[in-house]
Amino acid sequence: MSGNTYPSVNDLTLEEKASLTSGGDAWHLQGIESKGIPGYMITDGPHGLRKSLASSTGETDLNDSVPATCFPPAAGLSSSWNPELIHKVGEAMGEECIQEKVAVILGPGVNIKRNPLGGRCFEYWSEDPYLAGHEAVGIVAGVQSKGVGTSLKHFAANNQETDRLRISANISQRALREIYFPAFEYIVKTAQPWTIMCSYNRINGVHSAQNRWLLTDVLRDEWGFKGIVMSDWGADHDRVASLNAGLNLEMPPSYTDDQIVYAARDGRIQPEQLDRMAQGMIDLANKTRAAMSIDGYRFDVDAHDEVAHQAAVESMVLLKNDDAILPVAKDAKIAVIGEFARTPRYQGGGSSHITPTKMTSFLDTLTARGVDAQFAPGFTLDLEPADKALETEAVETAKNADVVLMFLGLPEAAESEGFDRETLDIPAKQIELLEAVAAANKNIAVVLSNGSVVSVAPWAANAKGVLESWLLGQAGGAALADVIFGEASPSGKLAQSVPMSINDDPSMINWPGEEGHVDYGEGVFVGYRYYDTYGKAVDYPFGYGLSYATFELSGIKAEKTGANTARVSVTVANTSDVDAAETVQVYVAPGKAAVSRPRHELKGFRKVFLKGGESAEISLDLDERAFAYWSEKFDDWRVEAGEYGIEVGTSSRDIAGVATVALDGDGKAEPLTEWSTFGEWSCDPVGSKVVSAMYEAGGNGELPKLPDNDMMRMFLNSTPINSMSTIVGEGGKRTAAFMLDEYAKLAK
Amino acid sequence: MSGNTYPSVNDLTLEEKASLTSGGDAWHLQGIESKGIPGYMITDGPHGLRKSLASSTGETDLNDSVPATCFPPAAGLSSSWNPELIHKVGEAMGEECIQEKVAVILGPGVNIKRNPLGGRCFEYWSEDPYLAGHEAVGIVAGVQSKGVGTSLKHFAANNQETDRLRISANISQRALREIYFPAFEYIVKTAQPWTIMCSYNRINGVHSAQNRWLLTDVLRDEWGFKGIVMSDWGADHDRVASLNAGLNLEMPPSYTDDQIVYAARDGRIQPEQLDRMAQGMIDLANKTRAAMSIDGYRFDVDAHDEVAHQAAVESMVLLKNDDAILPVAKDAKIAVIGEFARTPRYQGGGSSHITPTKMTSFLDTLTARGVDAQFAPGFTLDLEPADKALETEAVETAKNADVVLMFLGLPEAAESEGFDRETLDIPAKQIELLEAVAAANKNIAVVLSNGSVVSVAPWAANAKGVLESWLLGQAGGAALADVIFGEASPSGKLAQSVPMSINDDPSMINWPGEEGHVDYGEGVFVGYRYYDTYGKAVDYPFGYGLSYATFELSGIKAEKTGANTARVSVTVANTSDVDAAETVQVYVAPGKAAVSRPRHELKGFRKVFLKGGESAEISLDLDERAFAYWSEKFDDWRVEAGEYGIEVGTSSRDIAGVATVALDGDGKAEPLTEWSTFGEWSCDPVGSKVVSAMYEAGGNGELPKLPDNDMMRMFLNSTPINSMSTIVGEGGKRTAAFMLDEYAKLAK
Repeated sequence: MSGNTYPSVNDLTLEEKASLTSGGDAWHLQGIESKGIPGYMITDGPHGLRKSLASSTGETDLNDSVPATCFPPAAGLSSSWNPELIHKVGEAMGEECIQEKVAVILGPGVNIKRNPLGGRCFEYWSEDPYLAGHEAVGIVAGVQSKGVGTSLKHFAANNQETDRLRISANISQRALREIYFPAFEYIVKTAQPWTIMCSYNRINGVHSAQNRWLLTDVLRDEWGFKGIVMSDWGADHDRVASLNAGLNLEMPPSYTDDQIVYAARDGRIQPEQLDRMAQGMIDLANKTRAAMSIDGYRFDVDAHDEVAHQAAVESMVLLKNDDAILPVAKDAKIAVIGEFARTPRYQGGGSSHITPTKMTSFLDTLTARGVDAQFAPGFTLDLEPADKALETEAVETAKNADVVLMFLGLPEAAESEGFDRETLDIPAKQIELLEAVAAANKNIAVVLSNGSVVSVAPWAANAKGVLESWLLGQAGGAALADVIFGEASPSGKLAQSVPMSINDDPSMINWPGEEGHVDYGEGVFVGYRYYDTYGKAVDYPFGYGLSYATFELSGIKAEKTGANTARVSVTVANTSDVDAAETVQVYVAPGKAAVSRPRHELKGFRKVFLKGGESAEISLDLDERAFAYWSEKFDDWRVEAGEYGIEVGTSSRDIAGVATVALDGDGKAEPLTEWSTFGEWSCDPVGSKVVSAMYEAGGNGELPKLPDNDMMRMFLNSTPINSMSTIVGEGGKRTAAFMLDEYAKLAK
Repeated sequence: MSGNTYPSVNDLTLEEKASLTSGGDAWHLQGIESKGIPGYMITDGPHGLRKSLASSTGETDLNDSVPATCFPPAAGLSSSWNPELIHKVGEAMGEECIQEKVAVILGPGVNIKRNPLGGRCFEYWSEDPYLAGHEAVGIVAGVQSKGVGTSLKHFAANNQETDRLRISANISQRALREIYFPAFEYIVKTAQPWTIMCSYNRINGVHSAQNRWLLTDVLRDEWGFKGIVMSDWGADHDRVASLNAGLNLEMPPSYTDDQIVYAARDGRIQPEQLDRMAQGMIDLANKTRAAMSIDGYRFDVDAHDEVAHQAAVESMVLLKNDDAILPVAKDAKIAVIGEFARTPRYQGGGSSHITPTKMTSFLDTLTARGVDAQFAPGFTLDLEPADKALETEAVETAKNADVVLMFLGLPEAAESEGFDRETLDIPAKQIELLEAVAAANKNIAVVLSNGSVVSVAPWAANAKGVLESWLLGQAGGAALADVIFGEASPSGKLAQSVPMSINDDPSMINWPGEEGHVDYGEGVFVGYRYYDTYGKAVDYPFGYGLSYATFELSGIKAEKTGANTARVSVTVANTSDVDAAETVQVYVAPGKAAVSRPRHELKGFRKVFLKGGESAEISLDLDERAFAYWSEKFDDWRVEAGEYGIEVGTSSRDIAGVATVALDGDGKAEPLTEWSTFGEWSCDPVGSKVVSAMYEAGGNGELPKLPDNDMMRMFLNSTPINSMSTIVGEGGKRTAAFMLDEYAKLAK
C-alpha cells in the first residue's frame, strides 16, 4: 500500500463501517465523503465493458451502454487454448476501464459447463476446471496489470439458470473440490483477483452469500484470498448472516445498513468481523486509486479491435473439412447463405451484453476485401416457421456456386442469461434449408454461430466442412474471412465435448433439478470425464479441432521430478507447408485407485505456433495436484502410490502416446479401528501381523477358530471386526478386542 | 389372540424384557423358561428352508443344512409374473417350516435390483418396485397362511454387497419413496409380515438398525406395521440406540442384554419403548404357537417338488427364437453341449443356499423321458482357462445334430451373497466355445443359467434361440425339458432390463460407491425408468419375453372411477393354436409434471392363460398411487391434475395401445411467500390478481414501474419477490410488501 492511502477502518464510526458493506447505488461502491473515501464505479463484463447508461439505482434495458470493444465471449475465447492471447484481452479491457473510470469489471465467470443446455454457457469457459482456470486467469491478470480490478464469478456452482436464485446445488465434497472449485482456486492462488462475486444459488442448502465454509474457510483460510467478496446482484438475503459468513459487499444496496449496525451493537456480529469486512472495502479503494486517478485517458480503439480480431481468429474450431473444402479460393464462385453472414450473432444476452465500438459482418468484410459472392439470407433470425421464398432464393443462389458458405446457428432468443436452453438443436428451418441447398450443391461449408454446443450429427452429412465459430465478438467478420480464405489456419480446440445427443450427458437425469434442489448425481464425471471413462460415443471429443496444417507428435517421455511430480516432454512437428498452431494436451490417467476416478484428466496444455516444416520440443511440469483426488475420508487431497499414465495428444481421444511414471504416494494412511474390515486389517502393514497372530492363536480355547472355507473367509474379509461374531460366533468380540490390543502395542 | 396365550410384558421383570430383545442363539429366539415363553427357531430362506445343521452359536459352512425343497430363487420366480403361483410356493415353504419346527423363515428379500452387478440380485425380485411387491407378497401371504412367519428383508436399500456393513446409501427422499420403499410398503399394508429384517447398511448416514425414522416413523406410524423388526445378522451395533429406534430383536445375540437393563434404569430407554419392543416378541411367539405345536407333521415331498417344477416352467424367459428353433422335436438329432446340462446351477450362494430334497439335471431328465441326445460338457464350471480337448469334443458332438442345445451361464463362483459381480459377461471360454460350435452348426439354442442379468448381445448372433432360465431350483431339469420340447410354452417376462452394456446403466457412475458411501445419483431413474425416459437402446426391455403362441391385444380403453383413479380394460387373444400365457402390462405415462418423472411406470399386470384361439377381456384398477410422485416439498405423495397416458402392452417397449384419462389432481397447493417468484405469483389463481393490481399500480409514484421489455420481464418472472429490487430498483421491497399484503387480504 502506498503512503498516500485512504483512512483505515479504525478511523471510521460503526455506521460508516456498516455503510461500506453495501453499494452506493447499483453500479457504485459506497464512498464516505467526509473521510475522503470515494465510491468508485463497477460494471458488468466479462468480455468487454458494459457501463450502463441507465439510471444508477435500477435499470430496464441491459443493452443500453457506453461503447466498448466487444471481445469474443468465453464460448469462443476458451477454444483458443491461448492464455497469452487471453491476457492481452484482459489488458485491453483494463485500459477501457481506466478511460471509463471503472474500478472493477465483473468477470470472468469460471463456472463449469456442467450441461451444455446451461443458459450462461456462452460466458463460461469449459467443462474442464483445469482449462477454465488456466485460460480465465489471463483475464484477471491482464485487467489487474492495468490497476483495475476483476470480479471472479460466480462462486460457486452457478451452473444453470433455472431457479438460480433459490436452487440448492447438492454436490459432493469431492465433486466440489475436483470439478467446481479448481478454476477459482487456481486463479485465486495465481492472480489474486481483487474481488470475487458469490453465486445466487445455494450449495448443499446454504446460500453462497451466507456460506461461511465457502467464503471464509475455503476461500480465505485455505486458498489465501486477500480481496473482497461481493454478492451477485440480489444474492444477499440476510445482511448479518452474510457479513458473518465473509461477504464484504451487498450489491445492489438494499439500504439496510442499519441491520449491520444493530447486529454489531447486540453482538450478533463481532467487531473484528465487521472491521475485517469494511477494511476489505477500503483496501479495494486503495488498490484502484492509482488507475482511477488517471484523467483523460483514451484507449486505442483500433488496437483493441485488432486484439478482438486475433482473439476471434483463434476462437474458431474446425470440426470437419472433407475434401479440404476450406480454405476457399478468393476467386471461386462463392455463395453465402444464411442471415448470420449479414447480421452476425457475436455475443450472448443478459448482463454481459456490450455495445461494440465497431461492427463488421462477414458480408461487409467480403465487400471491404473485394471478394465477390452471392448472398441469400435463407431464413430469419427468429423462432418463426420457415419462409419458403427465402429458402427458394437460397437454393437458387447456391446452385451454380463452386462453394457454398452456409451460416447457421442459434438466434439470440435461443440463449441468454436468465434461462436454460431446452434443446441442443439449431432451429429446424435451418436444417431444412441446409438439406434443400445440399440437394442442389454438395460443396457446402457450414459456419456455426452459437454460444454453447449445438448438435452437429443430425445434419453433418449435408456439409463437407463445419467451422464452429461460437460467438466471435465485434471483429468476427474479419476473423472469419481470414480463416475461410486461408490467411490464417483455424487453431481452436473444443473446450467442451460435442455429444451425439443431449440424453448422453450424465447430468440430464438431474437437470435442471426440481422442488428447489438439483442433485449433481454424476459427481466428478462431467463432460469427457464421463464420456471417456464409460466408453460413450461422442460426436466431437473435448480438445478436438482440425487445422489446415498437419502435425506429428513424437518422442513422448516422462520423468519423475520428485516423489509425486513429473515432467513430460514431446516433439511437435508441423508436417505441412502451412503455418499454423497445434495444441498439445497432457492427460493424467490414474491406475487402480481407492475411489472411482475419471479415465484421464487434463493436467497440462501448450499451444505451439509452427511455420510449415518446423518442429519444437516442449516440456510441461506436472505438480502433485495433477495426480491427486479429493478424499472425503481424509478431507484432503490424496496422491496414491503407484503407476500413472501420462497421455500426450491433440484431443481427449487423439492420444499420440503414453508415458508412465510410478509415484511414491503421499504416505497418508488411516489407522485401523474396530470399524475396519478383517480384509483391511489383513492388507495393512501392521494389521497383517496381528492377523497372522490371530490365525496362529485361533482355536486355542480363548479365541475362536477363523473360518477355513473360501466363502466364509470372503465374508470375514468384508466384515468390520466389531461384527466378527456373525462369522466366528460368540468369541468374535474377544477376537476383536485381542486384535485392537495387539495393534496398539505394535503401532507404538 | 386366543385365550391361551403367553404372559404379557407386564408379567416380566426388566431383565426378562431385555432378554427378549436378542436371540437365544444364532438361530433361535430367546425364550423365558420360568414364564413358559419358548425360544422358537428361525432360519434362512428365502426360496426354501435353510435349517442349518451346524453349531447353533456360530457356523462355518452355509451349505450344511437339512434337506428342503429348493424352489426357484427370486431371479427365476420373479420372471413368472404370477402371484398365485408364488403364493403356492409360499404355502409349501410354510408347510416345510412346520415339519422342521421353524417359526419364521427369513425372506423374501425385496430390495431393488439397482444395478445388475449386485451380488444378491439372484435373490431379489426386480428393478421395479411395483412388480417386486406384487410378486413377493405371495411368499409372505403363502407362508403365513400356514401359521408360520416371514421376515421381509432387507429394510432398506441393501442394494449391493460391497462394504454392505458400513456403507451409507445416500438416497433422496423421493427415490426412497418411489423406488426403494414401495415393495416393502405394499407387502406391509397387504400381508403384514410377522417380522421385518433391517438392512446392514446405513441410509443417509444412519445404520438401518438405529434409524428411528425408518423403523418407527415410516414403517409403523405411516404404514401400520404390526410385527417385529429384527437385525440382519450382525447389523445391530448399538443395542440402546437400536431399541429406541424400533428394533425389537438383535440377531445373532451379542450377549449384551445388560446394556438394555442399564439404559432402562438410567432413562436412556423409556419404559414404554422397552415394553413395546419386548411385547412385540411375545406377540410373535403367540402368532407362531399354533403351528409350532403341531407334532410329527411331514410335508409332501413330491407335491412340493411339483410346485417347484411348475414355478420353474414359468420362470424361464424366451429371449430369441429365430426360425422357431424351439420347441425341439423329441425325435430330432439333438446335441447337448455345456456342463450346466449335467451339473445344473440351480440356486445362488450365501445364506440362501439350500440342500434340495431331489435334484434332476436336464440330462437326467432326457434319460428319464427316453429322449436320445449326444452330450459334451464343453467347458468346466470354474474360472480356469478353456480346455481345448473339451472344446474339440463339443464341436464334434454338435457337427451333425439337427439342433444344438448349448447350456451356458455363470458358474457358482461368479455370483453370491457377499460380493458384487465385476462384469455382465459370461466366461470368455463359453463364448469361444459357442463361436466354435456355431462354425460347425448354425442350429443353436442357448440355455442360460445365471442369477442376475448377463450380457447377451456380444454373442447372440451365434444362436438362433436364447432361453434365459435363470436359476430354476431343484426341478429345473424337468421344467427345461417341458419347455424345450414344447410340453409347455415359455411364459416368463423379464423382471429386469437386459442392457447393451453395463456402462449404459445409470447407476454405474456411482457403483459401488467409495469411502463409505454410495450416492444414488440416478434418483428414480432405475432400470427401464432410465432407458425408456432417455431413449437408450437396450438389448431386451423390461417385461419382455417370447412365447410359442402369438397374442393380440385390442379394445384398450380406460375410464375414470374417481377423481384420481381409473380402470383400464383390454381384450387379449391367443391367435395361435398353442396353449400359453401372455402377461398384460399396464404402464402409467404422466404428462407434463412439476418434477422430472419417468416416461412411464408399471402400475398393473395380469398373466392370462389362454388355450389356442381363446380370448379374454380383462380389466385392472389403478388407484391414486398409480399416478402419484413423491414430493419432497410437500413431504407427501402428489397427484397433479392433467392428462395421463395409460399404456397397455407386453413389455415396456411393446405397447399395444394407449388410453388417456384426465385426472382432477389432489388439489394440494403451496401458499405464496416472499420466496415465490414473480412468475409463480402470476400463475397462482390468487397471486395473479395481485400481479394485475401491481401492473395497474406500477409507476404510480409509490411503487416502481414493472419492466416492459421481454428480457427484463423474463428475469422478473424467475425472481423471488424478495429480490425484486435487483430488477425494479429500490422500490422492490415496497412492491413485495404490497403484494404480500394484498395476497393476505385476498386469500382470506
